[in-house]
Amino acid sequence: MSLAGRSLIRVDDFSAAEMQHVLNVAETMHQRLHERQTMLAGSILATAFFEPSTRTRLSFESAMQRLGGGVIGFADATTSSAVKGETLADTARIIESYADVIVMRHPLEGSVKVAADYASKPVINAGDGGHQHPTQTLTDLFTIQRARGDLNGLQIGLCGDLRFGRTVHSLLAALGHYQVKVLCIAPPSLQLPERYRPPGVEVEQVQRVEDVLPDLDVLYVTRIQRERFPDASEYEAVKGSYRIDAALLEQSKPELLVMHPLPRVDEIAYNVDPDRRAAYFGQAAYGVPVRMALLALLLDAESSAGVPGPAPLAQPVEHHPRCPNPDCANRVEGYTEPQMLLVGPHQRRCLYCDLELTVG
Amino acid sequence: MSLAGRSLIRVDDFSAAEMQHVLNVAETMHQRLHERQTMLAGSILATAFFEPSTRTRLSFESAMQRLGGGVIGFADATTSSAVKGETLADTARIIESYADVIVMRHPLEGSVKVAADYASKPVINAGDGGHQHPTQTLTDLFTIQRARGDLNGLQIGLCGDLRFGRTVHSLLAALGHYQVKVLCIAPPSLQLPERYRPPGVEVEQVQRVEDVLPDLDVLYVTRIQRERFPDASEYEAVKGSYRIDAALLEQSKPELLVMHPLPRVDEIAYNVDPDRRAAYFGQAAYGVPVRMALLALLLDAESSAGVPGPAPLAQPVEHHPRCPNPDCANRVEGYTEPQMLLVGPHQRRCLYCDLELTVG
Amino acid sequence: MSLAGRSLIRVDDFSAAEMQHVLNVAETMHQRLHERQTMLAGSILATAFFEPSTRTRLSFESAMQRLGGGVIGFADATTSSAVKGETLADTARIIESYADVIVMRHPLEGSVKVAADYASKPVINAGDGGHQHPTQTLTDLFTIQRARGDLNGLQIGLCGDLRFGRTVHSLLAALGHYQVKVLCIAPPSLQLPERYRPPGVEVEQVQRVEDVLPDLDVLYVTRIQRERFPDASEYEAVKGSYRIDAALLEQSKPELLVMHPLPRVDEIAYNVDPDRRAAYFGQAAYGVPVRMALLALLLDAESSAGVPGPAPLAQPVEHHPRCPNPDCANRVEGYTEPQMLLVGPHQRRCLYCDLELTVG
Repeated sequence: MSLAGRSLIRVDDFSAAEMQHVLNVAETMHQRLHERQTMLAGSILATAFFEPSTRTRLSFESAMQRLGGGVIGFADATTSSAVKGETLADTARIIESYADVIVMRHPLEGSVKVAADYASKPVINAGDGGHQHPTQTLTDLFTIQRARGDLNGLQIGLCGDLRFGRTVHSLLAALGHYQVKVLCIAPPSLQLPERYRPPGVEVEQVQRVEDVLPDLDVLYVTRIQRERFPDASEYEAVKGSYRIDAALLEQSKPELLVMHPLPRVDEIAYNVDPDRRAAYFGQAAYGVPVRMALLALLLDAESSAGVPGPAPLAQPVEHHPRCPNPDCANRVEGYTEPQMLLVGPHQRRCLYCDLELTVG
Repeated sequence: MSLAGRSLIRVDDFSAAEMQHVLNVAETMHQRLHERQTMLAGSILATAFFEPSTRTRLSFESAMQRLGGGVIGFADATTSSAVKGETLADTARIIESYADVIVMRHPLEGSVKVAADYASKPVINAGDGGHQHPTQTLTDLFTIQRARGDLNGLQIGLCGDLRFGRTVHSLLAALGHYQVKVLCIAPPSLQLPERYRPPGVEVEQVQRVEDVLPDLDVLYVTRIQRERFPDASEYEAVKGSYRIDAALLEQSKPELLVMHPLPRVDEIAYNVDPDRRAAYFGQAAYGVPVRMALLALLLDAESSAGVPGPAPLAQPVEHHPRCPNPDCANRVEGYTEPQMLLVGPHQRRCLYCDLELTVG
Repeated sequence: MSLAGRSLIRVDDFSAAEMQHVLNVAETMHQRLHERQTMLAGSILATAFFEPSTRTRLSFESAMQRLGGGVIGFADATTSSAVKGETLADTARIIESYADVIVMRHPLEGSVKVAADYASKPVINAGDGGHQHPTQTLTDLFTIQRARGDLNGLQIGLCGDLRFGRTVHSLLAALGHYQVKVLCIAPPSLQLPERYRPPGVEVEQVQRVEDVLPDLDVLYVTRIQRERFPDASEYEAVKGSYRIDAALLEQSKPELLVMHPLPRVDEIAYNVDPDRRAAYFGQAAYGVPVRMALLALLLDAESSAGVPGPAPLAQPVEHHPRCPNPDCANRVEGYTEPQMLLVGPHQRRCLYCDLELTVG
């Protein structure tokens, strides 16, 4: 099985071996970042961003151009045909006829899966609502591996908005491939939803970062995203509930990695920036070589021959009921077929948004 | 006469032979779509979009980059200097100094002609209000020719918003070059304005698609565009007045081409998509090779030597009165000179928006 | 000292010799404008525009691509992470990891200096509020030199909004390198603030352009920018207070250069356009070769070896008080350190916005 022509919608679309292969190619890309490369000359990336983004969009555009490819696209929904009432399926089928690979960000959970289901070219999920953000996860893993060599044996703290944070949800799915201990650090109202807890990973929930900081190898901080909260008072109650600063870090290991997918607001004080533990700007920069590797592999400019692919789904899929999650693309885009994984006799899991529900 | 350096504002800017030459070059471009080409390396396309667009803008940007050229531009009016009060003439003269060819979309009828009148480099009309959209027409003709070999002898149904639909207006102007029968299918309030009826083409008006469907070779459907209606109640009265679905298509010829310039809302049901008669996604994809051909010809990277050009205007032009159409660029941009074609002793036709008026 | 790797935030970041070197390289770029060049192939320019722009952004993008480089970026603040509350310092540090050089426009005075202070790659100021716009100045100087050979001995009239016009402020800083006489032509409420008056330049203030027109070699007209006025009534009182037209120009020298950074509203009548004195469209076009030269020099693709750099600051800098100017980045971005130049015992000059204040 090869990565060429495949889509990346959720972390488990790739096997552990395939993810590691992307990271290995990314290492090569990183070494040659400032050489002029033309391996994707003649290819075109379409960036379809229905939500604003600086980091993800620009790093993809940079990655494509650093490999000699071209870029087309739109940076917000108002300049696309969505304002004329076009469905996601139509947008995907049209854009793919102008490009060789599509990167999409969209506010609905499962929206990028819809695009991939209707398109025949590779589609990459650059964030689908509060669901997943798998290329951020590849970048996160690359950052940890380059600093520590290996993930196995590490204690990893996830701090902040674990409820709505798609970067956290994707990272957790990947951590299932390693022997790690995960500490979920958040106020109760922002704790990790059960459905994002990966099987086989040791997860502990705590409220205060101080209680676990001395043991951590990685502290992964996320912004509390105002735009994901259903109401403003809930946001006001939790904003600013934690803040990492230089004084606090004195309690940590000297080789701790402080990571953040950025942008930050005030979760990490500016006085952390000069500390050698501050890994977040390097992490942002690694987005380019990681995305170069991904694009080169999906477009078959780098080989992935012989790398074992993911196991097929173990459980059958049913086409009812329609997902009840109001933010799920299966609910909002009425022409899409429900895809419910039978995870138990009365348990279903929506393949668009990962909501688990009890039926019958 | 050569196409190099020319502008394409309205379909009759090109002779029938020149349009066919563009389509012939497009066929070559289509064959080589996935080869790396550099014939426009060093050239720059400016996309000046004062209205949102996915299809047209992205397909032009893809076309230019597939030929090795670069792209600059803006995707909506708010990021351009128009918000500072700049005239179209000034915008055109400045942008042309940064690029080698300009593609413009603008809400005013005749607006792109104003840009072309003031610029010395080629300007391509990507839609000027409810007036024309000639590169869509080239794409439409390419789609029909590839499927049917020839247009002569075909029965072509135009269905939907024939009043405000610029793609229909441009297509009709081109159909005057062929022996075709045109069926205009629309409720009376959306029927074709007299001024868009091409001389020498057999045109019949009907209200129901069912009445003519069995005889049609092409069914060209358009969206009813809410944004073109002067008032909302008029729109509500006609929206949803026709809908093509799989059941309806059983009455049609098996080789019928169902076309649509897209985006669709609900004029064509999703159950038509798998039908071999559904030509609209292929039609969208053909936008790239057709626009590659056009760019290559206007920038003289492909030859058009020996192809006869259009006949000069048969009637004289007067510089009064100013056009009374409130959506015409001649009325809104006060510095432009009226250009009235004397089509009869008391009849004038505005060269910006094609409005016909009686004078004296 | 070399220009490679340097930033250009304000005109005096470059010595007179360095500015002239940029203009000399621009002359070469202008000669070869339509040759295919690849000297920046493999390099990427990031355009970070927090305010709309046609001219400056598109000319930079054209310049970069004409040299074979790639472009990423955003055209307005709503598609960037600034809407998520990110600071300028963070935005700059992240964008620089995706690109080789950054061009930034932002409404705050001194904002681009903040970006340059935090980034390690070259940052170019494309307009920071009402403060400076140095690449416009390079273009202005190039326009005058090409037409007149030399600036020394010329009489230069600056007409319009001398109070808020950043192009005028930057041009004046550069005119200090030449033997010129400057006429500031504006109603009293729009006259030049004292802090933008360059030492050693003969400056005279007048209200009416008619009084000085016959003696002028250059008439540099600017738009009265509604968006810079603190209140609307002040704008209404001065708008339209001067207007250059063909009749007025009859009083001028035949070799006068009428310049304007554009866009114009009605400061220069359309009947001036065909006059040989109208230099503004040529001036706009020169933006491309000038910016090509600047990019090539900052990215070390053109040499600036042996060109003497600017003198170091003659006065010491203190880190208090914070600048009181409400439009200054030092005031708005709270994490930035005040940088006050001691220009006298009780006089300070803010290095962000050039405000002079009395202390103690």
